[in-house]
Amino acid sequence: MSRVDMPRLFPILDWGRRYDRLDFSGDTTAAVIVTIMLIPQSLAYALLAGLPAEVGLYASILPLVAYAIFGTSRALAVGPVAVVSLMSASALAPLGLDTVAEFTAAAAVLALLSGLMLVAMGALRLGVVANLLSHPVIAGFITASGILIAVSQLKHILGVPAHGHNLPEILFSLGQGLDTVNPWTLANGLAALGFLFWVRRYMADVLHTRLGLSKAAARTAARIGPVFAVIGTVLLSWAMDLPALGVAVVGDVPTGLPPIGLPMIDWALIPALIGPAALITIIGYVESVSVAQTLAAKRRQRIDPNQELKALGAANLASAFSGGYSVTGGFARSVVNFDAGARTPAAGAFTAVGLTFAALFLTPLLYFLPKATLAATIIIAVLSLVDLRVLKTAWTYSKADFAAVLSTIVLTLIVGVETGVAAGVLVSLLLFVWKTSRPHVAEVGQVPGTQHFRNIHRHDVLTDPSVVTLRIDESLYFANARRMEDMILARVQAAPDELRHVVLMCSAVNEIDLSALDSLEEINQRLSDMGVSLHLSEVKGPVMDRLKRSHFLDALSGQVFLSQNEAYEALTATKD
Amino acid sequence: MSRVDMPRLFPILDWGRRYDRLDFSGDTTAAVIVTIMLIPQSLAYALLAGLPAEVGLYASILPLVAYAIFGTSRALAVGPVAVVSLMSASALAPLGLDTVAEFTAAAAVLALLSGLMLVAMGALRLGVVANLLSHPVIAGFITASGILIAVSQLKHILGVPAHGHNLPEILFSLGQGLDTVNPWTLANGLAALGFLFWVRRYMADVLHTRLGLSKAAARTAARIGPVFAVIGTVLLSWAMDLPALGVAVVGDVPTGLPPIGLPMIDWALIPALIGPAALITIIGYVESVSVAQTLAAKRRQRIDPNQELKALGAANLASAFSGGYSVTGGFARSVVNFDAGARTPAAGAFTAVGLTFAALFLTPLLYFLPKATLAATIIIAVLSLVDLRVLKTAWTYSKADFAAVLSTIVLTLIVGVETGVAAGVLVSLLLFVWKTSRPHVAEVGQVPGTQHFRNIHRHDVLTDPSVVTLRIDESLYFANARRMEDMILARVQAAPDELRHVVLMCSAVNEIDLSALDSLEEINQRLSDMGVSLHLSEVKGPVMDRLKRSHFLDALSGQVFLSQNEAYEALTATKD
Repeated sequence: MSRVDMPRLFPILDWGRRYDRLDFSGDTTAAVIVTIMLIPQSLAYALLAGLPAEVGLYASILPLVAYAIFGTSRALAVGPVAVVSLMSASALAPLGLDTVAEFTAAAAVLALLSGLMLVAMGALRLGVVANLLSHPVIAGFITASGILIAVSQLKHILGVPAHGHNLPEILFSLGQGLDTVNPWTLANGLAALGFLFWVRRYMADVLHTRLGLSKAAARTAARIGPVFAVIGTVLLSWAMDLPALGVAVVGDVPTGLPPIGLPMIDWALIPALIGPAALITIIGYVESVSVAQTLAAKRRQRIDPNQELKALGAANLASAFSGGYSVTGGFARSVVNFDAGARTPAAGAFTAVGLTFAALFLTPLLYFLPKATLAATIIIAVLSLVDLRVLKTAWTYSKADFAAVLSTIVLTLIVGVETGVAAGVLVSLLLFVWKTSRPHVAEVGQVPGTQHFRNIHRHDVLTDPSVVTLRIDESLYFANARRMEDMILARVQAAPDELRHVVLMCSAVNEIDLSALDSLEEINQRLSDMGVSLHLSEVKGPVMDRLKRSHFLDALSGQVFLSQNEAYEALTATKD
Repeated sequence: MSRVDMPRLFPILDWGRRYDRLDFSGDTTAAVIVTIMLIPQSLAYALLAGLPAEVGLYASILPLVAYAIFGTSRALAVGPVAVVSLMSASALAPLGLDTVAEFTAAAAVLALLSGLMLVAMGALRLGVVANLLSHPVIAGFITASGILIAVSQLKHILGVPAHGHNLPEILFSLGQGLDTVNPWTLANGLAALGFLFWVRRYMADVLHTRLGLSKAAARTAARIGPVFAVIGTVLLSWAMDLPALGVAVVGDVPTGLPPIGLPMIDWALIPALIGPAALITIIGYVESVSVAQTLAAKRRQRIDPNQELKALGAANLASAFSGGYSVTGGFARSVVNFDAGARTPAAGAFTAVGLTFAALFLTPLLYFLPKATLAATIIIAVLSLVDLRVLKTAWTYSKADFAAVLSTIVLTLIVGVETGVAAGVLVSLLLFVWKTSRPHVAEVGQVPGTQHFRNIHRHDVLTDPSVVTLRIDESLYFANARRMEDMILARVQAAPDELRHVVLMCSAVNEIDLSALDSLEEINQRLSDMGVSLHLSEVKGPVMDRLKRSHFLDALSGQVFLSQNEAYEALTATKD
């Protein structure tokens, strides 16, 4: 044990030792506000995941304590979030589970698998895997998920049965139910939507300008607006007995502490859950670590990505063992936590105390809460995720990025979340290979009066008919080796008879793999046959180290020059 | 039709117009020799593919005519080859086909699918797909296939039943049959092996030194050695009535022309054949086009890779419609064709005439041919494919290439050909992404007396404490964007207080994608906060064009310099 870096493994040992009254005051204030925000959110996201409301509460207690012990971000608030809830629902739907108990158990198993994967990735320092998700793919995926989530909640606003995990399925089943719309549900839903929209858009302004609250306080107060919608509609629903009018309400929510223990594991389901669990793991981690890094940067703090993997893993394991489901760090919630003054991960633990209180005493009050109110909460929350501007940015900047984001959005909407994100990653990777397989090659000449060489078509440069210098703007590897071969030979065949030297300027060649080495040997041979020597210039250290381990340099008809300038001077001088 | 480039689509219209007596004489000589070589080969490879012997003959008639019409290589000899025969057998094995007729029809359908894919790839100019196979992966795959093929033929040498499509399966089933080894078969097999080994190793020398044949003639004569083994063992088998002693012989081979017509298509099998057909298509194309290019280069000729796709497609379609199976250009056969003086694709058509003659008149003579002789032919032929030196070359040169070749060899042997080649491609691609996700970054300084900047750790260079220049040796894209961010910020935090400027030298940055642009904006912002400006130097034309379409250059705290030298002079001058 003496070699284990305990404070690194348990960051709580680090910040906990220095914990003071100022920290306590900031953390408790933040915890109160996050608790008020989290009660309706946790219920709503459980609903979105197809789970009983209390599962959302359970997922907001022990996971927060686990993160407080292992986490390195001082502002991240973990718990159920919209996108992961949607992914959980989408993973469980095709399993054909009959009862709510089976469904709840499977959701816990999903969190268990995801927790194990996160811990394993943390132990193996595999956080880099998340880098395979490019920014446009993440942006596209979050946007498309937001749209899917909002549309999926329309059934609660309309009070009609509907199902499906992609846009065509959901819209089709909504269309079939349109003749059974419940007017009371619809009225309740629209009222909640209108109120929440106003809260999000104008309430902070009103509190700031009319009531004189500080901007930060007004913004934070506006974040807990959904609680007023919950309280208002619960009272209305109770007073008017809306359930008797056919309005779906949350109903009986068990009172008490979360059930502790291993979830009921149906081993036959495990193979079908591995893939979805891996996707939830990656998406949840990327979402969480982005939020944590953004907030840490604002206070000049750092987070440790590999420790974050372990902490999120611990949170998911805690959730699985206490009747919850998949959790991660949420964006809106963490921003509120940060703005409200959270100073250490203890704020999360205090929030857990608040949620425990809610699970113990508040659930009977939720009986009359209309599901339409929760749906409205979700819709307003996820609309901020939807940002189609990424399409325009990508289109302007790079068609490859555009193709990746467009395929992610379209496939997420049309087929589903798993296909969407997998397609995004695959398209990004294939386009990268495709781009590097068709490298830019510039013929360069000397910028007059300098030792600098640039593209003859873009700059006014000096050249010499006996020397052709080609700057290859890509690493040479199997996907472009043969193309290089053809390109260089074609260029030489088109050159005038005075041509004696071809220089490959390798300033942008970061690697030469074995396939490309074969091609270089071939080029060297063929040029020799034509009486032209092949030279290299500006070969980088690591590339040169490797070439020295091969026989290529012995066979090379020309030389390797440290700089392009040396090459040009030596080769044009020999001519005279 | 007037816009169609007829000679390009039908190269025969080009070379056919200039066909002269010299061409005819070279082509017929080559055709006679290739015919003699191809008769035992075509029977043997059909056996390897699990097909009746005559299917091999049929696959060596019309496909050769089709290639003669559409092909652009003047030396390529198409027909059944070892690796593709093995892949065909491996594709059909799991289908659970009961009768020989079903198996033969399915093999023809495989050729049909592969032919359609080749033609489609040719029409869409998708020959580049073959570039995804790196040289080490191809070398590893061919080597492992050679081993698999040789081992799979041991059953015929031993005269025991055996099956399987990977090394463990074959060895296990061989082991089970060891107590039923037929001594006559074994004697015949070992004798043929010994004779053929001698032919391959020493016969050319003997013919050259003792009989005074020219080296080329001796080499060519040695290539038709297998025919002597066939004739010898047929006579022996007939004289001693080996079939009565339990020696498996080829038996009745139908006499006559190939059956012309669409193969019997079992539509239910198509989905299972698509994947294997795609692999056979790619491997067959790569093998064929490499041979064709090697031979064309020797005579300073060129082949057209996209037209080659169409020609191989036509050959496979012809094979499917005439009772054959998958074909491609064979290495040994093409070399013999080339050495024997083939001057145009007509040599292939003349070979087809020779094979037609064999199908019409020679098949009754093959009744007594022991299968052990054919197996010995295959073993000796494929042993030249096995070259494990690629492992050593790859190990010395690059561990990534080594990993790709090793996984290809191991998985081909242990699991099978399809898994092996797929794993090779996947491992190559993932390793490429992995390598580019961890780029080499060099801190550079000025080489004294020049305008050239190199790594401060490798060269004696000048630096200035107010400027840190980092040369990033990789395109910036999603897989390395975040890593760059961390690396640059860590470097700046470790720098002395005098630091005022960070220059990113982009001579090796061939692309900046949207994810990396986000990271650059982030770096620019963070450095600004620390009072350090960010500059870029040597940004390439295409990268700069794209940056100009974004807002990054407006936000950039520093400048973009054409050369690193300008950057260094400007920034160190402002200090004074």
